[in-house]
This record gives sequence, C-alpha cells and structure tokens, in this order.
Amino acid sequence: MTFTVAVAGASGYAGGELLRLLAEHPEFEITTVTAHSNSGAPLVALQPHLRSLRHLTLVDTTPERLSGHDIVFVALPHGKSGELTAHLDEETLVVDCGADHRLESGTDWSAFYGGEHFGAWAYGVPELIVGDGRQRDVLAGARRIAAPGCNASTVELSLAPGVASGVIESTDIVSVLAVGPSGAGKSLKPHLLAAEVLGTANPYAVGGTHRHIPEIAQGLRWAGATDVSISFTPVIVPMSRGILATSTARIAPGASAAQIREAWETAYADEPFVQVLPDGQVPRTADVLGANTALMGIAVDEASGRVVVVTAVDNLAKGTAGAAIQSANIALGLPEQTGLTVNGVAP
Amino acid sequence: MTFTVAVAGASGYAGGELLRLLAEHPEFEITTVTAHSNSGAPLVALQPHLRSLRHLTLVDTTPERLSGHDIVFVALPHGKSGELTAHLDEETLVVDCGADHRLESGTDWSAFYGGEHFGAWAYGVPELIVGDGRQRDVLAGARRIAAPGCNASTVELSLAPGVASGVIESTDIVSVLAVGPSGAGKSLKPHLLAAEVLGTANPYAVGGTHRHIPEIAQGLRWAGATDVSISFTPVIVPMSRGILATSTARIAPGASAAQIREAWETAYADEPFVQVLPDGQVPRTADVLGANTALMGIAVDEASGRVVVVTAVDNLAKGTAGAAIQSANIALGLPEQTGLTVNGVAP
Amino acid sequence: MTFTVAVAGASGYAGGELLRLLAEHPEFEITTVTAHSNSGAPLVALQPHLRSLRHLTLVDTTPERLSGHDIVFVALPHGKSGELTAHLDEETLVVDCGADHRLESGTDWSAFYGGEHFGAWAYGVPELIVGDGRQRDVLAGARRIAAPGCNASTVELSLAPGVASGVIESTDIVSVLAVGPSGAGKSLKPHLLAAEVLGTANPYAVGGTHRHIPEIAQGLRWAGATDVSISFTPVIVPMSRGILATSTARIAPGASAAQIREAWETAYADEPFVQVLPDGQVPRTADVLGANTALMGIAVDEASGRVVVVTAVDNLAKGTAGAAIQSANIALGLPEQTGLTVNGVAP
Amino acid sequence: MTFTVAVAGASGYAGGELLRLLAEHPEFEITTVTAHSNSGAPLVALQPHLRSLRHLTLVDTTPERLSGHDIVFVALPHGKSGELTAHLDEETLVVDCGADHRLESGTDWSAFYGGEHFGAWAYGVPELIVGDGRQRDVLAGARRIAAPGCNASTVELSLAPGVASGVIESTDIVSVLAVGPSGAGKSLKPHLLAAEVLGTANPYAVGGTHRHIPEIAQGLRWAGATDVSISFTPVIVPMSRGILATSTARIAPGASAAQIREAWETAYADEPFVQVLPDGQVPRTADVLGANTALMGIAVDEASGRVVVVTAVDNLAKGTAGAAIQSANIALGLPEQTGLTVNGVAP
Repeated sequence: MTFTVAVAGASGYAGGELLRLLAEHPEFEITTVTAHSNSGAPLVALQPHLRSLRHLTLVDTTPERLSGHDIVFVALPHGKSGELTAHLDEETLVVDCGADHRLESGTDWSAFYGGEHFGAWAYGVPELIVGDGRQRDVLAGARRIAAPGCNASTVELSLAPGVASGVIESTDIVSVLAVGPSGAGKSLKPHLLAAEVLGTANPYAVGGTHRHIPEIAQGLRWAGATDVSISFTPVIVPMSRGILATSTARIAPGASAAQIREAWETAYADEPFVQVLPDGQVPRTADVLGANTALMGIAVDEASGRVVVVTAVDNLAKGTAGAAIQSANIALGLPEQTGLTVNGVAP
Repeated sequence: MTFTVAVAGASGYAGGELLRLLAEHPEFEITTVTAHSNSGAPLVALQPHLRSLRHLTLVDTTPERLSGHDIVFVALPHGKSGELTAHLDEETLVVDCGADHRLESGTDWSAFYGGEHFGAWAYGVPELIVGDGRQRDVLAGARRIAAPGCNASTVELSLAPGVASGVIESTDIVSVLAVGPSGAGKSLKPHLLAAEVLGTANPYAVGGTHRHIPEIAQGLRWAGATDVSISFTPVIVPMSRGILATSTARIAPGASAAQIREAWETAYADEPFVQVLPDGQVPRTADVLGANTALMGIAVDEASGRVVVVTAVDNLAKGTAGAAIQSANIALGLPEQTGLTVNGVAP
Repeated sequence: MTFTVAVAGASGYAGGELLRLLAEHPEFEITTVTAHSNSGAPLVALQPHLRSLRHLTLVDTTPERLSGHDIVFVALPHGKSGELTAHLDEETLVVDCGADHRLESGTDWSAFYGGEHFGAWAYGVPELIVGDGRQRDVLAGARRIAAPGCNASTVELSLAPGVASGVIESTDIVSVLAVGPSGAGKSLKPHLLAAEVLGTANPYAVGGTHRHIPEIAQGLRWAGATDVSISFTPVIVPMSRGILATSTARIAPGASAAQIREAWETAYADEPFVQVLPDGQVPRTADVLGANTALMGIAVDEASGRVVVVTAVDNLAKGTAGAAIQSANIALGLPEQTGLTVNGVAP
Repeated sequence: MTFTVAVAGASGYAGGELLRLLAEHPEFEITTVTAHSNSGAPLVALQPHLRSLRHLTLVDTTPERLSGHDIVFVALPHGKSGELTAHLDEETLVVDCGADHRLESGTDWSAFYGGEHFGAWAYGVPELIVGDGRQRDVLAGARRIAAPGCNASTVELSLAPGVASGVIESTDIVSVLAVGPSGAGKSLKPHLLAAEVLGTANPYAVGGTHRHIPEIAQGLRWAGATDVSISFTPVIVPMSRGILATSTARIAPGASAAQIREAWETAYADEPFVQVLPDGQVPRTADVLGANTALMGIAVDEASGRVVVVTAVDNLAKGTAGAAIQSANIALGLPEQTGLTVNGVAP
C-alpha cells in the first residue's frame, strides 16, 4: 500500500531533509509540497539537491492544499502549525516538526516560547524510555505526532538510561553541544552568514535560555527523574549539519562503572537507531551524517564523580526529519526502519 | 636594546607561531631556528607563511646551537626539553612551550605524562590570580619560564576570578572545549587528517584522561581553591585554530548575580589581554584569531545553579606563543604588550 | 538473485564508500572485506560510520580470500591491483577502483605512473559518448571493469557532448577543479593534515603533471576528438568530499549558443545520473554529496569565445564507488540505478 | 606626524579590515567611524574582534562627519561613494574601497555596473606594471585613490609580468578563482548562509558576467596588452577569506620556459608584497591570511602550451584594505610598508 504525503514548509532545511528521506521511502508517495513566499516555484529551485523531485512545484501552505493526504508533514516555524493543523482531518496522520506540540506544560510553553499553547501530541522519540516502556508504545496508532527538538532528543537519549536505572543523578546535569548552523534554519540572520561561521566557534543562548531546556526536562521526567536541572550551552561550529552533545551527570551514590555501562548497553541493545559504542570509544558527527542514528560513547570519570555521555546525531535526520518518518512508520504499523539508513556518509 | 633569540622546534605549529609573532617584535632579533628531521632546509619550506624570514635556514636542535642567545624559546614535544635546556646558561632566558616544566607535583607528572619529571618553572600566565597578587609577579626577572597548556590556561583564566572571590565552588567544575586541530601539533595521525576533521565534531580524551587536568587544578589552587574537581572534555571541530571553552561551576551559597559579575569584571578590569564582555554577550574564537587575547562572557544561570563562563582563545597565540612572548617581555622588564596584538583577524 | 561481494582495500575512503553503497544494494551481499595492516580488526574500527556492517572483520588481501565471490571490488593504491586480480577467475566480475587498468596506452602509463602496465579494462563511465554509442554498451556483460579517476570522469562527462557534436574545440581546454581532500585517500601526508586544509585553498600537480590528464584525453578521443590538449589544475579546498570542475573550451567556428546548449541537453536528456541544469544555473558540490549524480551548468561566453562547463560530482560516489556499482549493475544485467541515489545530502 | 583618519562604512567586512590594519599603523589615528543603519552603536558591537577600538562609536555617514580629517577611507557598496566623496575637500586624501572610481571607460561602467559613472581615480595597485613604470608612480602625491577589486588585482598582478615582457598572449586568458565568502560582503543573501557554504563549492557569475572583468582588462592594457580576452569564473569555497586564482595564458611563440620564469622573477624581485615562489612551488591562501602579500607560483606547461600562474591573496587585506593603506602610505610619502605585514597567519 502506498500512502500519499504532503510536506508543508518544503523550502526550508527540515522540509528538504523530509523530502530527501521520503524520496527513498518505498511506501510513501510525495504528492504535494507547499511553501510561503516561494509558492509557485519549482521545488528544485529551493532544494537543488533533490533532483529526483524536479517534477514538483511548490504551492501555497493552506489547509485546502494539505487536505486529502494520508500523511502531512509540517516543517514550519513554531507558532505556525497549531492553527493550520487544527483544520486537518482527524484520520490524517499529521507529524509536526516544529515546537508547537512538544510541551505538555503550558507554563513551560509561555516561559520559553510565548503565544498560544496548542497542547502536546505524541512525542516522536521512539527509543525514549518512558516508565516501564518506550515512547514507541505511545506512537503506535497515533494520528498527531510532534517530532522532537534536535538538541532535546539528543540529550534525552543520552541520559535516559542512567536516569531510568538510577545510576546517575538528574539534578545538576551539564550539557554542551557543538552544533551545525543548519539547526537554526534557512534564516537570514547576520550570525548565520558563512563568513561568521567559518573558522570559528560561536556559542548562543548561554545561561539557561535555550528553548529545548524544558523539553529535555520533560523527557527525563518521563524516563523516571523526579527533579531535573540542566545547564545547557549550544556552540555553533563550522559544519553544516550535526550535533555532538557532551552531557555529564553526577554518578549516583554507590553506582559502579560496570553498572553504569550496563545501564546504557541494556537500554539500547535492541535499537537499530540508537547505538552504544564499546568502552573507550566516542562518536563523531560524520559517522551519522544523513543517517537516522544516534551514536553514543559512555565514560565514567570517577575522579570528577561524573558520567560523560557523548552523542552524535544529524540534527536534520535523526534530530528532525528521520525521527518524523520513523515515528510515522510506527504510527502506521510499518516496519520502523522503512526508508531510513543506519550508516552515515563519511568522510 | 635588541635581544637575540633562538627558537628550538621551529618547524612545528607552536614554533611557527612564535616566529610569526617574533618577526613583529621590535626588541627581538631571530638569529637561530632549529629542527630535527628538517635540519638543513630553508625555514620557509616548512613555514611558507613566514615570508619575511625566508633568509633563515633550519639547523640541528643541540645545546651548542642554542647557546649564546639572550632568549631561547623551546617548542618541542613534551619530554624533549628537560634535558636539552639543562645545558643552557642560567642567565639565558629560556621559555619552554612544552609541558615539561608546568607541573609542580611529580605525582601528577607521573600520572598524566610519565618519564622523568624536571620540576616546575615560572608559569607563563601573567594575569592568573595567585594568592593576593598575579602570576606576573613571579615572572618578573625569571630566567626559566613554562608557557602554559593552551586548554589549561583558558580554563584557569575562566574560573580564577570566581574561585578567588569565593562566588563559585571549585568542586564539580565541568568544562567542554571546542578546539581546532592545530592544538594537536603537526603530527601525522589518522584522526588529524583533513577528511576526518572537515564537517564533523570529534571528541577525544573523554572521561578524565586529558593531560591538562592537573595543570588546571594547580592553577585554581594558586587562585585560592582548596579542593578542585573537574570534568574536562575537548572536542575537535573544523577550524584550524581556536579554543572555545564552556566552563561551568556551581554558584557558591549566597552569591548574587551582581557579585558574580563583579568578581570577573574587577579581576580583569586593567588587563589588556583578558577582557570580559558586557552582560548578555559571548565571544567567538574568530574574535581572537592571531591575537594575544582571552575574551570571555559570563552568564549566571540561577535555574541550574551554575555560572557559565565562555572563553575564546587562539590556542597558538594567547594559548602558547603569545603567552610565551608576553611572559618573556615581563621577565626582561619590557612593556608587557610589546610585539603582541589585541585585535583578532575576523571574519 | 543475490550476488556475493568482496571488497579489497576496505579500510580506505574508496573502500568505505563502496561498502556504504553496497549496504543499501538489494541484490548484493557483502561477505568479505580485506585490508593490509588492519587485517584482523573489526571493519567498524576503521569505518565507524558503517554501523550496519559491524559484524564484519577485516581479513588479509590475498587471492585466496577474494576467490569464490560473484563480484570483487578492488580499492587499492595503483600498482597493487594488477597482479592480485590476475589470480581471480575469469567469470568473477572484478571492478578495480584504482588506476591500473584505465589507460590503453602503455606510453601514457609509463609517462604518468611508471611500473608494469597491466592493460586496459572496460572503462566505468556508462554515460560517456563513445563513437555513435555510449560506454555502457562496452560495459554490458563485461567481467573486468576499471572505475574511472574521479577528476578524469568529471571532465570527460563535462566536455564529451561538445566534442562529439563538434561545437567546441578539443585543443586548448582549460580545467580547474576545486576538490576535497578525501580524493587523496587516507594517507598520512603533511599537506593533508586538517590544520593545513582548513581555511585555505591549496593547489597541487600544477603545470601538466596530474595523472588524470592522459585519461581525460583518452575519454575525449573516444567521444570523437582527434587532438586533445588540456591545462589541468586541481585545488584542494576545505570540504571533505566533492569536485567542482570548471572546464572551458573554445567555441568551434560557427557554433551558436543554442546549438551548444542543445548539444549537452540532448546528450544527457535520458540519463538519470548526469543532469544538465537550465540556462543560467550552476551546481554546487553539496547538491550531489553521497549521490551518484554529475550535475552540470553550461554557459556560453561569447566575449571570451569559450564555453564554460561547471560540473559537480562527489569524488567518492559518482567519481569512484558509485561509478563502480553502476558499472557492475550494467555488467550483470541489473537495472542501472539499483542501489544508487540521485539526490544529494544538503545542506 | 600623525594623520587623522575617518572610515566610512565601518560596520562591514572591508571597513572592519581597514580598522584592524589602521589600529596597528603608527602614523594614523582613527578618529571617526561611520555607518548607516548601525549609527549610534559601539563599533565593537559590529566588529567584536576590534577590542582595542572599543572606545569608538559609529556615527552617520555624512559629508559633515567625514570632513576635517587628513584621510577618509570609504568602504561603501558601489554607487554610494561617488556623490558622498564629491563633498570632501580636495586636499583630503580619499581612498575608496568600492568600485565607483576604478574604471576609466564609461562604456564598461555602464555595461557591468550601470548608473552614473563618476570617473576614474588613481588605481591602488602599486606593484602593477604600467608602461615603463609602476602604478606607484601614479599614486605618489595622489589625493583620490580607488582601491582595486580583490579578484581583479589578483589576476592583474598574476599576468602583468608576462604581458609586459611579451612571453604570454593576452587573448584567451582563463582564470578560475577559489574565493571565500567575505568577498561578497556582510549581506543577507541565502547563498551566503553558512549552511549553504560549508562543505561545498559554489560557482557564481559564470560565463563572462563578473564585474571585475573590465577592470582586469584595463589593468593588463596598462601593462602593455593591446587586446585582452578573459574567461573568468569565481567559485565560493568554505574559507572565510582568501583568493586562490589559477590564471592561464597561452605561451607567446618562441618564449622559453626560462624566459617566462625570468619575466616574473624580475618584475617582482624588489617587491616586498608581491613574491614569486621558486620553481615547483605554489602558494596556499593560508600563507597570506591577514597579510598584505600576493604570493604566486609559476608553471610552464609546454604540453598544453600554457603558462599557469597560481596566486594567493587575502581578499580583505592585500585585496582591499591592505592595498588601500599601502596606497595611502605612498600618496602621503610614508614608507610603503608602514603598518602592514608580510607574513600570513597560518595554520
């Protein structure tokens, strides 16, 4: 069976990555691609790398254009999807790659985003430990899915096994992320100009202001934490894609190095898309470029009393579009890996 | 008065940066440049950017070649300088850019480096708070100086004001650094190949094994800490030079945001080469490229209970060769800024 | 039917890209991977991005290990494959990604490579115009195939339509290529260190010495040129992969701009993997990253009397491993596109 | 004597580089910095790397603000300086870094720029061969100077010795340039976003449309060419700064390899800022980063009948701001090298 697919916001980076992956998906057929100011242009004028889709033309982003598909992927700035998707049929599978439906707490929404809160949808991180199960249990059969924040899901997957097993403390987490500028979208801001990014490392949202912080806390609470505090600092570095998250948490009293390693290895032993490297190894973002894989290395630093988890993710793939498609596969009852790759494009 | 200068290890990155800066120094005259396997070659064959020094030829790295100069800068791998410099005259100013004479503790040396410990020299971080004074007091008149580890001095300068003033705790520090590959030297290792570094972020020495850890602890103890623990993770990113260090420490009980900011602003108010940015601003490594400047932003994250200090340094300049020359200026009684620049080369 | 596959030289960049593509190929099964000094190691220790192949272990590169497979891909340095492949069964499909079997002329071989010349195999550029047909006619049913030089095939595909149709002159061609360092292989040479490549453009083999020059001339002669001369300059730029070839040739007397454009558009109208952009557009290497696509823009510069063809290719994919697999598909009678993608990974 | 200096357009890349160099100039004192939309902001808010100038505030770009200085450097978009500078006193030294006063031919101006043509000023490439002399002869005592186009001056310096000595032909020149995105200015255009530049090579203005083409032809005519034609293609590559120009021209009948090399070596033997590398060597852009140096390698390719000249220049330094300051030094009778460096910042 083939599912018809529309992508709203097809001219941006998340939209482009959705289309790149969808073009390889054997069960999905892309029939509609929408944009705002670029409506009427050939898709390939905005996404010149999608040569197999050069027959597609961008149309307006309206409920009418999006109606009548089996699946609608939405890749719009936050605040733009809530109202739009309210018009879509309940039986349509809607996967929102924006932030509008990620947070359960209206208070968090107001504090970090502002504007109307449209409520939470099924959160698109299938491997996340949630109580005694996984988030994929929630996604099965869902018709409204919120793909995660790329930084948020990376940190959640990094720490959930330790939180759930009790071998780390969830207070006083420190995460520092090297991130590529595509995570900020195709937006014309001075600090995103090539000459400002090449040859330099550039931190932003320093000191507890990044919008993914409440999302991480929510994910870790689902994994079993009662209290979460996190110091979170992203640093833009000169690579187009990728997140390399270094997350540290205090070792819980009495937890041994072996118990710690076992917590992660057990948690992800059967996950094709979340893989734990052997002791002493750490990942690079190149290892997961274009792939739906989160690759992580675990080190126990007894001198500092902290576990260090280093996780590599492609922000556009596993961080956004890959997570969206993986979640859609689950929702529709397709094999979870359909249309997704494990191997990165390196070097 | 002009001082004659020899540079041992002139074919590597630290040696090249020393020579680039020395060529602009009005009081120093480069008379001898030495190398090991490249002895006999024109300097410019190894350092093609040093066009003003194309008259120089590399000679062997021997005590005989290095003797008779007013100043000897040593840029050799660790373990190579201890014996060599023992042969040099006591009145010669020797500045070692390697690790051999940085650590006071033989135990630390054995644990992190191994081999013979040659003892500590005057540590070349002039702005470092040491007790009631600064490290420049120790450097004045010194004839044996150890230039700092680039990562180590960056973290020391980042945190010393908070430690000295008591507004942060020195236990449970977490530092994550985005670093350029030139910090690893001109060494032919697979993970330093361009195709392995371009487009990717690559952590190393994860979990408490990096050699700069005891050096940081030593520096912070000098600044007033009684007990130091640090989780330290460097990540190689695709920029040739630069360190962007994100260091966080717990806010001391009762310290206010205003007190915290004041601690840093007061500490560096009169320092041309260590500058604190206004509240809300953070530095980029490009801002200090080629300069002798450490530029830092301070954020107080009350939700996580941590101060975040983000500091940008050029690992080869302020991190190594600039620190060496600044320290030499002090030792010789020259104005401290002689031959050094504050402004970076950006974009 | 599934074909068993061995890859000789699986630890290098070409070998890694072969395996990345083979892992997605529905008709091929990777059963043997060989290496030289890394024999005995897990494949994933050398190719950490190939997570789906973490069950494979590298074995020695010997005729015995390679025998008994349906297909053997060889990714060894030039001069290493001639003797090795002589031992393989005639019915085995052998695809050599090295230079040993690309040149028909022993004189050219001696002048540019030296050592024993093992003779030419079917050349793996299916879309290349050869007389009245295409090179794919030669590849059908072949059992010995030489994958092309990445720079060479890029320039051949760029200019063959003009040469074959007579709208450009084949003497006095000028090609300048921006290339990523992965084209030079995983070799420990100082000029390939990251710090030497980041932030800089670095030409090499300037002045007519590059080994791909006779290969280009051979290809253009097959396309119909009687006399070929080419000034060829590659420049390493800071991107891990990619070739952006700017090739110019004099407009043949009497050829109009319309005729010129038509020559290219007609030649590649039915080719999925060689695409000509509309007038006024030019490609970027990112558009073909990881893809088997050569993307080209054509401009007629009447003021200078030259046609300018700008072509983007991924040196490891369409330039090497993709061409090898595409050629193998043809040789075995499989659909030519099997296991290959048209769309690049951008941004 | 100290000259007072104003910089108009201080918030952009050319303005920033002017200020970086001026800050090190012992005879110049920066008293006024102007901007358009950023008027009123601290300079350092726009140029965070210029820490020694943090006392300066941007004011409006008006004739009133610029009047009364000994020197006015103008770094505005083309078309903006003609009218503005008409108001400045004749005795004020005005150096325009824009295009408004580079071209003598109103026809060329109309064809490539359009709008009012304000006429040509003394062209700021001191080392350019002009008839029997050098362009510095024209610059001595000048009070209106047009700094060159960065690409244009690079190609002019590359080929003038061959043209002037008659060893190459000036018709059918081909130049392909790898350039950093800072050459396009701090302008918010999609193709200049970091994610569009990182990891890719991106040609533009292909096919004879680039505005520097008539400027190159003008320069080579001054050097002695009667007829100039040039195929010119710039390619943006992922480095913030730098131009690596590969220029080829046909060898004149009868010219020997020795004569060709001698032409370049003789032409630049006494020039500190234009240096010719020994036979077999080629430059990298890193070798001249931040420096006022054009570094070139010459190869004679007899098989293709062409000379290949590869020249590295920092587009912001020697290509723009360095040329402006060097020219100002000459105009004012100061030593030509004052305030400028020969050595690049590498790696």
